[in-house]
Amino acid sequence: MNVLLKGGTVVTHEETYVADILCTDGVIAEIGDNLSAADAEVIDATGKMIMPGGIDPHTHMQLPFMGTVAKDDFATGTAAALAGGTTTIIDFVIPSPQQSLLEAYQQWRDWAEKAHSNYTFHVAITWWDDSVASEMETLVEKHGVNSFKHFMAYKNAIMATDDILVASFTKCLELGAIPTVHAENGELVYHLQNKLLEQGVTGPEAHPLSRPSSVEGEAANRAISIAKTLGAPIYLVHVSTEEATDAIRYAKDHGHTVFGEVLAGHLVVDDSVYQDTDWGKAAAHVMSPPFRPKHHQDALWKGVQGGALQTTATDHCAFCAAQKAMGQDDFTKIPNGTAGVEERMMVLWEKGVNDGKITPNEFVALTSTNTAKIFNMYPQKGCIRVGADADLVVWDPNQSRTLSAATHKSAIEHSIFEGMEVQGVPETTLCNGKVAYHKGEIRSQSGDGRYIDRPTYAPF
Amino acid sequence: MNVLLKGGTVVTHEETYVADILCTDGVIAEIGDNLSAADAEVIDATGKMIMPGGIDPHTHMQLPFMGTVAKDDFATGTAAALAGGTTTIIDFVIPSPQQSLLEAYQQWRDWAEKAHSNYTFHVAITWWDDSVASEMETLVEKHGVNSFKHFMAYKNAIMATDDILVASFTKCLELGAIPTVHAENGELVYHLQNKLLEQGVTGPEAHPLSRPSSVEGEAANRAISIAKTLGAPIYLVHVSTEEATDAIRYAKDHGHTVFGEVLAGHLVVDDSVYQDTDWGKAAAHVMSPPFRPKHHQDALWKGVQGGALQTTATDHCAFCAAQKAMGQDDFTKIPNGTAGVEERMMVLWEKGVNDGKITPNEFVALTSTNTAKIFNMYPQKGCIRVGADADLVVWDPNQSRTLSAATHKSAIEHSIFEGMEVQGVPETTLCNGKVAYHKGEIRSQSGDGRYIDRPTYAPF
Amino acid sequence: MNVLLKGGTVVTHEETYVADILCTDGVIAEIGDNLSAADAEVIDATGKMIMPGGIDPHTHMQLPFMGTVAKDDFATGTAAALAGGTTTIIDFVIPSPQQSLLEAYQQWRDWAEKAHSNYTFHVAITWWDDSVASEMETLVEKHGVNSFKHFMAYKNAIMATDDILVASFTKCLELGAIPTVHAENGELVYHLQNKLLEQGVTGPEAHPLSRPSSVEGEAANRAISIAKTLGAPIYLVHVSTEEATDAIRYAKDHGHTVFGEVLAGHLVVDDSVYQDTDWGKAAAHVMSPPFRPKHHQDALWKGVQGGALQTTATDHCAFCAAQKAMGQDDFTKIPNGTAGVEERMMVLWEKGVNDGKITPNEFVALTSTNTAKIFNMYPQKGCIRVGADADLVVWDPNQSRTLSAATHKSAIEHSIFEGMEVQGVPETTLCNGKVAYHKGEIRSQSGDGRYIDRPTYAPF
Amino acid sequence: MNVLLKGGTVVTHEETYVADILCTDGVIAEIGDNLSAADAEVIDATGKMIMPGGIDPHTHMQLPFMGTVAKDDFATGTAAALAGGTTTIIDFVIPSPQQSLLEAYQQWRDWAEKAHSNYTFHVAITWWDDSVASEMETLVEKHGVNSFKHFMAYKNAIMATDDILVASFTKCLELGAIPTVHAENGELVYHLQNKLLEQGVTGPEAHPLSRPSSVEGEAANRAISIAKTLGAPIYLVHVSTEEATDAIRYAKDHGHTVFGEVLAGHLVVDDSVYQDTDWGKAAAHVMSPPFRPKHHQDALWKGVQGGALQTTATDHCAFCAAQKAMGQDDFTKIPNGTAGVEERMMVLWEKGVNDGKITPNEFVALTSTNTAKIFNMYPQKGCIRVGADADLVVWDPNQSRTLSAATHKSAIEHSIFEGMEVQGVPETTLCNGKVAYHKGEIRSQSGDGRYIDRPTYAPF
Ligand SMILES: [Zn+2]
Ligand SMILES: [Zn+2]
Ligand SMILES: [Zn+2]
Ligand SMILES: [Zn+2]
Ligand SMILES: [Zn+2]
Ligand SMILES: [Zn+2]
Ligand SMILES: [Zn+2]
Ligand SMILES: [Zn+2]
Repeated sequence: MNVLLKGGTVVTHEETYVADILCTDGVIAEIGDNLSAADAEVIDATGKMIMPGGIDPHTHMQLPFMGTVAKDDFATGTAAALAGGTTTIIDFVIPSPQQSLLEAYQQWRDWAEKAHSNYTFHVAITWWDDSVASEMETLVEKHGVNSFKHFMAYKNAIMATDDILVASFTKCLELGAIPTVHAENGELVYHLQNKLLEQGVTGPEAHPLSRPSSVEGEAANRAISIAKTLGAPIYLVHVSTEEATDAIRYAKDHGHTVFGEVLAGHLVVDDSVYQDTDWGKAAAHVMSPPFRPKHHQDALWKGVQGGALQTTATDHCAFCAAQKAMGQDDFTKIPNGTAGVEERMMVLWEKGVNDGKITPNEFVALTSTNTAKIFNMYPQKGCIRVGADADLVVWDPNQSRTLSAATHKSAIEHSIFEGMEVQGVPETTLCNGKVAYHKGEIRSQSGDGRYIDRPTYAPF
Repeated sequence: MNVLLKGGTVVTHEETYVADILCTDGVIAEIGDNLSAADAEVIDATGKMIMPGGIDPHTHMQLPFMGTVAKDDFATGTAAALAGGTTTIIDFVIPSPQQSLLEAYQQWRDWAEKAHSNYTFHVAITWWDDSVASEMETLVEKHGVNSFKHFMAYKNAIMATDDILVASFTKCLELGAIPTVHAENGELVYHLQNKLLEQGVTGPEAHPLSRPSSVEGEAANRAISIAKTLGAPIYLVHVSTEEATDAIRYAKDHGHTVFGEVLAGHLVVDDSVYQDTDWGKAAAHVMSPPFRPKHHQDALWKGVQGGALQTTATDHCAFCAAQKAMGQDDFTKIPNGTAGVEERMMVLWEKGVNDGKITPNEFVALTSTNTAKIFNMYPQKGCIRVGADADLVVWDPNQSRTLSAATHKSAIEHSIFEGMEVQGVPETTLCNGKVAYHKGEIRSQSGDGRYIDRPTYAPF
Repeated sequence: MNVLLKGGTVVTHEETYVADILCTDGVIAEIGDNLSAADAEVIDATGKMIMPGGIDPHTHMQLPFMGTVAKDDFATGTAAALAGGTTTIIDFVIPSPQQSLLEAYQQWRDWAEKAHSNYTFHVAITWWDDSVASEMETLVEKHGVNSFKHFMAYKNAIMATDDILVASFTKCLELGAIPTVHAENGELVYHLQNKLLEQGVTGPEAHPLSRPSSVEGEAANRAISIAKTLGAPIYLVHVSTEEATDAIRYAKDHGHTVFGEVLAGHLVVDDSVYQDTDWGKAAAHVMSPPFRPKHHQDALWKGVQGGALQTTATDHCAFCAAQKAMGQDDFTKIPNGTAGVEERMMVLWEKGVNDGKITPNEFVALTSTNTAKIFNMYPQKGCIRVGADADLVVWDPNQSRTLSAATHKSAIEHSIFEGMEVQGVPETTLCNGKVAYHKGEIRSQSGDGRYIDRPTYAPF
Repeated sequence: MNVLLKGGTVVTHEETYVADILCTDGVIAEIGDNLSAADAEVIDATGKMIMPGGIDPHTHMQLPFMGTVAKDDFATGTAAALAGGTTTIIDFVIPSPQQSLLEAYQQWRDWAEKAHSNYTFHVAITWWDDSVASEMETLVEKHGVNSFKHFMAYKNAIMATDDILVASFTKCLELGAIPTVHAENGELVYHLQNKLLEQGVTGPEAHPLSRPSSVEGEAANRAISIAKTLGAPIYLVHVSTEEATDAIRYAKDHGHTVFGEVLAGHLVVDDSVYQDTDWGKAAAHVMSPPFRPKHHQDALWKGVQGGALQTTATDHCAFCAAQKAMGQDDFTKIPNGTAGVEERMMVLWEKGVNDGKITPNEFVALTSTNTAKIFNMYPQKGCIRVGADADLVVWDPNQSRTLSAATHKSAIEHSIFEGMEVQGVPETTLCNGKVAYHKGEIRSQSGDGRYIDRPTYAPF
């Protein structure tokens, strides 16, 4: 089944023009004026924009974490993604310490079979010995993995100490893969959590106090410095602070290759949420790094505008109210995570494009193309040209919506964007050349998503 | 006559792949594997790179300046450009104070009729009244001009004072054109020149003393601040200092749209040249801004790597030894200018790519694509895709050369790059689909070059 | 008449200790334990702090400006100063363009005869010719002036253009005097004022729009760069923006001698005051530079803490409601100025010391010692030691007050600090060894103040 | 025995004036004009400067380290100090892991009995358990220790990992003591050392390669961030890089209390010394952090000028050629350390004051007063006033000398300042009111030095 998009304004990371687009066999077959195709489903895109499907480089579908499992699985989570214009997610394989990386990888591949959208995986390095190094090699050579994740927080669990960072970054460099980090100083978090609990501060309001911005700034700078010392590139996930943004900027200004990712949530939600007198609402916002005082939002937007931050993500990891309640008496036991894979692009359009902070071309770069380039999926993904995958979103810049858990596709009953008015929404999403979402309705099937191989040595 | 490039490695600002390219009727007709064309001249590009033809955004061919006229005219200068892989220059129309902009523009258009390469013009704003504003409008609407230049130096001549900057930037913003500036504080230069002459310091060694880096830093920051206050974008020509680079960076980090251009010369030549005991050699290097102490070169390269500086140029303005001698007794009378349009790309390849500072893709961005985008010639220029102009350079990364005035195409007897060994040279240059330069030989004719219209509202 | 302060805690810019202080003949005669003096007025300072009397480096008593004259004259203004713990002011001699500097200086000296507190003068350079240079010399050699002020704003009035700045800074350097600047780009202000008036925006809310922060940042950087180029030190009055603070920091970090002054008002009042629906209240806050968006306050405090800003002032220039009303139909005609000489130290204590931003020693440095050093009055002023002038304030850190126009000593009916609760107030102020203010009562007489000679070549 | 200094120019951190100084019973008894004292040794200081005796905050006399013991013991080392104008050193007690802090402290106190100059101790935290915390308390309360040192390098030996830093900084904050750090990332150093050895790079040229500047920048930022998170001040010893200086500056600009120390050696010696073909000469320069590429020197001087670096030290730890030879086959076994306690002030005068980078007042602050303030010995030390300790240096700014191992007092046969010409040398040094050094001759006795108690809660 072919699809013909008629009369839309094509918006890429660097161009804007009006054209028809014909999609055949999952790829873009033709771009031009007055295209026709006898057997194609025709979608009128007049007055709409056609952009590369979004890529969310940071999600955790059905993640087993903190004694429970995230509610959105690869089926519901990726359906939500498509409803938001996102056609590919990069999720995380997180082996337990001492677990085989390949075993964990296979587990996640199995879970992801039911995905609606395309997907691919970062693999976390949570421990170290020679077998880990060897399995990294296998993942790169046989399984299309080109990025490895390191948690600098979560002491006594999956924290990677400096010796692991040094060993793993060295291995990444050797393989042409890119190391990524969750940057928070785990020792400080551990110290502050214990101190707060000792002081009897046990509610969600303690969460941000246990992870102040300096904790992230420190780890960001450490990861970058280690990478720089070794000659490796580095990618920082969920940059949420002025300090970390400044650390990235400093490194870039000194000639180092470093990338920063920012979450839609951190760009628009501040730490006043943790003062909510409704425990459930406050707990619903518990994620790490936490939401921040407002001036960090300014810094993040400046980072987006100036080029320090190149990608936008969500860290989508959906826990419902019942799960959050596990931390009723101890904020350190509240499962960390919030949803957002569906809202990311709308939020970035509203607060970025509509507020005059970024152009539509920059929007495309930030939601799709830059991620495709950094993780070496470009120009198969993140791109509108003949031969590229037909992952596209038809965007209606004039349509408005009020974001709400009442209407989102995610399986949980809360939205960190609850009540936000946005103008500019996805009307239709094409994934692999098929209409996967159209005007509120999910048309794709569980299992339609494809796994994306990502070769090493991305050209940055 | 068609041209078929076989087996080359296509390098654009964002991709690298092997393909054949067929050029027909001045444009790229086909890109693919195993292309053939009965009537085409076939060029074997195996082992070579094919890149977009260079664009030099800053030249002054046959400029009437300081009582003489630059030696390289639009014929010799653009032939030199083609020999260096550059297929388009942006030259400057510089009206005298009180002269009609349209009249000056027409004069430069006439002069440029004899160009070998493509060309287009920035127009300088050297004075102000309502007629100037009105003629800016005409230039934009009728003549394809989208950029206006302002000299913040050259007091008592063409210097634009703050009131002119404010008025002209405001007009540019209204028209969707981009203001550009030569950033040096003219009052300080004037003061220092007079002081040095009073002290009896009259030789070329006084030139850099009369224009220290703080003089450029000041003006750069002023131009950017004025533009920012008015909401206009801004482009700084020939950024030569750490201070100006920092000023650009500061503005970008605070969300403003500002672009910086760096000259090949400033990246690799330092101010020790002014200490040459041979007056002629020292004088040959007199240009403004002058060559700088070495630490500025580090800062400029960091600016290139980190994104503060997006384009590379030459300020090609060739004066011969006899002309330089006009300032024998007074350094302020030495005609300011040096050549470089031919060497720019080789110098940037050698010191940028070969030294590991930039990738080949970044080289393309810096020598061609970024300029095409900023001055709104993209994707007609700066691009390799079907339908784009067939302005291409076949680059041999393995071939070496020693740069020298003895072998360059420029009409003058001096080269600021004299003796530099480079590996990586243009083997063949295609301009408008025709072989314009091949292995040392200029094949184009005077007059082959075309004027490029540049529409306003570039999408940055 | 001698005064003996018993049992207070002496706080200087670098020390804190308990001691008695005996003041005789206008100077500190003895510091020690268990002092006694038969004929001395004894003041019990137990539980109080004794600090050097404040020095306000920026006031305008009875200034003729914008068609009227500031209400607080040298009598009422300096009485207010004493009531606030300030024992010396540095006011400004502002010659009209073409007026003799000496003539203006004499005028101000005459006006100041009636001062209660000590005083000295910066002299403004509002025009330039050889006679100005010559009179600067006379002022330095014969009249104890070591600082000259330059207004970079107020086009068509007292604005100093770049040629004047270059000439005057050069002269200052030659004389060992320090140039100071009011840093706002006058051309931009003029352009924006006209544009706003043309758009029919005539109220006080237009005032900050006509002087955005970038206007100050530009001028700050320009003044610093000019000074740096010439090798002169520079002092920036009333730094009110992040941009200007950053410009100072950049210069200091690059080895240049630059000082920054911040007003108590800019540290604690933000630009929401211009939105007041009561025209009179909004107009009462009209001063230049204007109050700023809140994030500038953070930047200023950071500048204070990190050392970019060394002195605190008020720009005390009091206009009453009737005077403000002159700009009823045109915001550019509202006399620029606010009061504060009385509240400065209390505000800085409350928001600085009590809020944990600065220590009491830093408070002394910021309110007194640093100004004494920069303007070369140290250790005569700004100091507690035997032989120093007995200008002292007995500070009660436990006493609270609500600041209000209802109770202040200034002649006007408005206070920009109205309603602010402070804890920490001056209980007693000694000026020239006499009790000038005590528990709410002014004891000094008009004319008690002395003129302070300031020699050149301050040791910074 | 009293000493009367006649006619010298007194230079303190903030003042310069001519006066006589009478020293009695170890303290300054009188400062004034035309002083006389019947029983005093009179020293004519006409044309000389009198400054507070230098304080070197970082020495290691007779340190047991890397299998040997530093050659200069507390006798020879402190005699050298006095010959260089330094009257107090702060040395380091370095307990072995698991060793009692008190036991180690007592050991060092015993060793120091033979000192000529005054001395006091930082105590290193090289391991952690409750007893360490408890002994820190005892050291503070009973032994006048107010600073604790942490080595972030030297893995598998005395390295303090993040958990120790967090625990110890927290304890310091509780006690009012200041934590200090040797900032190098020990994991990276360890990794690079092993890699170099594996590659067969075993000579002194490998030393700087194993400790690149990013290794120091990382650790500096980490230590500062941890301190900032906990609310503690922090002092960085031997800052040798642009990165660490920038990290300090960043923290200070954001309101944190952080101090930086720079070694005389790092200010003037660069890393070309490791390329010396004479193994012994190269090895003689092995210390950590190593000497750096030249641009770091610029950055350090800028840090000194702008206030990021407040103290100067030497890390005096003298190993002779025979000791250095222990690392003949393995650079990691070359004992780390160089001498300098004698040359520090002369080097700083020559390259700082004579080169126009700092004023004589700043020289005093950098060599004495700032250290006295930070480590709470002011105004007993670092000060010239009645009642202060009579630790003074009579400085002859006109006398020249060539620094050389041939003439220095240190016990080793090498000087990193060999051959440096300096103008400005100590002529006479008074320690505790006695002439300890005069025109080349040591007059003090072993044991004349006193231990200095340093109370907590320094007023910064
Ligand atoms: Zn994370
Ligand atoms: Zn995550
Ligand atoms: Zn120019
Ligand atoms: Zn030019
Ligand atoms: Zn002013
Ligand atoms: Zn003023
Ligand atoms: Zn050390
Ligand atoms: Zn040490």
